[in-house]
Amino acid sequence: MQPPLYVITPTYRRPEQLAELTRLGYTLKHVINLLWLVIEDAHNTSDIVENTLNRIGVPYEYYLDARNTLNKLLNIDMFAAPMPDEYRKSKKAKPRGVSNRNRALLWLRENATDGVFYFADDDNTYDINIFEQMRYTKKVSMWPVGLVTKLGVSSPIVKGGNIEGFYDGWIGGRKYPVDMAGFAVSVKFLHERPQAKMPYKPGYEEDGFLKSLAPLDNADIQLLANNCSEILTWHTQTKSNHPAESLNMTKYGGTNLVDLDKQLVRPIK
Amino acid sequence: MQPPLYVITPTYRRPEQLAELTRLGYTLKHVINLLWLVIEDAHNTSDIVENTLNRIGVPYEYYLDARNTLNKLLNIDMFAAPMPDEYRKSKKAKPRGVSNRNRALLWLRENATDGVFYFADDDNTYDINIFEQMRYTKKVSMWPVGLVTKLGVSSPIVKGGNIEGFYDGWIGGRKYPVDMAGFAVSVKFLHERPQAKMPYKPGYEEDGFLKSLAPLDNADIQLLANNCSEILTWHTQTKSNHPAESLNMTKYGGTNLVDLDKQLVRPIK
Repeated sequence: MQPPLYVITPTYRRPEQLAELTRLGYTLKHVINLLWLVIEDAHNTSDIVENTLNRIGVPYEYYLDARNTLNKLLNIDMFAAPMPDEYRKSKKAKPRGVSNRNRALLWLRENATDGVFYFADDDNTYDINIFEQMRYTKKVSMWPVGLVTKLGVSSPIVKGGNIEGFYDGWIGGRKYPVDMAGFAVSVKFLHERPQAKMPYKPGYEEDGFLKSLAPLDNADIQLLANNCSEILTWHTQTKSNHPAESLNMTKYGGTNLVDLDKQLVRPIK
Repeated sequence: MQPPLYVITPTYRRPEQLAELTRLGYTLKHVINLLWLVIEDAHNTSDIVENTLNRIGVPYEYYLDARNTLNKLLNIDMFAAPMPDEYRKSKKAKPRGVSNRNRALLWLRENATDGVFYFADDDNTYDINIFEQMRYTKKVSMWPVGLVTKLGVSSPIVKGGNIEGFYDGWIGGRKYPVDMAGFAVSVKFLHERPQAKMPYKPGYEEDGFLKSLAPLDNADIQLLANNCSEILTWHTQTKSNHPAESLNMTKYGGTNLVDLDKQLVRPIK
């Protein structure tokens, strides 16, 4: 039996939500011994998301047993992980997904003993080969991510099998200038770093999380995708749609449009 | 054995091309007895696209035997289907994908005898259940498509099992105001309509093609997705990326970045 893979996907209410989960889900469905941790940025989970996850058929946690236990312990809603209000109400760049990912780390600390975890946003694209490669990560593994900045790719720079630096067109000042889709971490290693978590710092989420895993030598970072020479993950981004207009019930009551309207995801106000 | 499904996907050179094909391919890989007709809007097919298709593992036609034959017959490159120059050079809305789809129709007329075909753009999202439903289309089948215009969905309006009209927020003046992702057609029916093809008319591609299948009664259109009450396809759109900057070979020669650069798709000038 292969070591388990835990794929952590933050998600939030928007018109594209069900489509994005469907598309990612069909990729994950090709990978064995995988548990998909889908975490809403909301106070409540959603029935239409759950229906979608059931339809896709990938093993997932969305409602989960641990949640009620943790609700009692921490007086919070475990797998609904809203962004803290100070960020939600701010006009500045929001560290979207951080609270979700930290909730998932908490879940791993409580429930997982071995295997590997990976932060897989629902709008990115993944070649399934990368999952089989990351499955054997001892501490941290890294690989290139396509479609990142005007350089077209973000990657460790590798020469003679060693990391010589990082090629990444995003902000400077980072020890690990890597994309969220470009690394995986061993669960055992996470357990050895009880303080590791992701910071609420836009642009520095990956860097902050990887630094919280210190000590971590570059020599301990496994270079996947054939020594970082292949692009197997891409930072695709989906265009946002405006929330759908309300259905005119006077005109369309008694038609199929009433059922369709219930499947349109409208953002939380 | 189920009737074959022919999925027609126009594609073109852009930074997102390999990612989009990968993502769509993993959805199609869950569907049996499916042949993927991938057609480039270019004068030449591309090695990195072919490598990507091979890696995905869905049966496809990209290079094909019929091509050389047709090259000789028609003096054109069969499965490379460039947009006619009059449109390519125009600043107006381009009927992208029309030439590709018409090439695929030609391929079907030459090579297919039964089953069903479907136009599946590489940036949309598909629940695999729709493929099993469309497989048994007798003439034409239709169903809703999510994320179309500010209405949030495009669909036949169904009451009592009959088409009462179309709900679609896009341009008027169409007999069939439907999205490209919202219908499938039987191959036998295509053979009975030897003149059917898609017009080079932006906004009217679907309408024009469906009208070219006349005579076609609304009563002959099968309504899938539970009488058009479920959203199983979505018109997702991917944000465009600028072409990647050139790699500084002086600085990065001898590193993995040289290999990565070869996997970046740059548009044809």
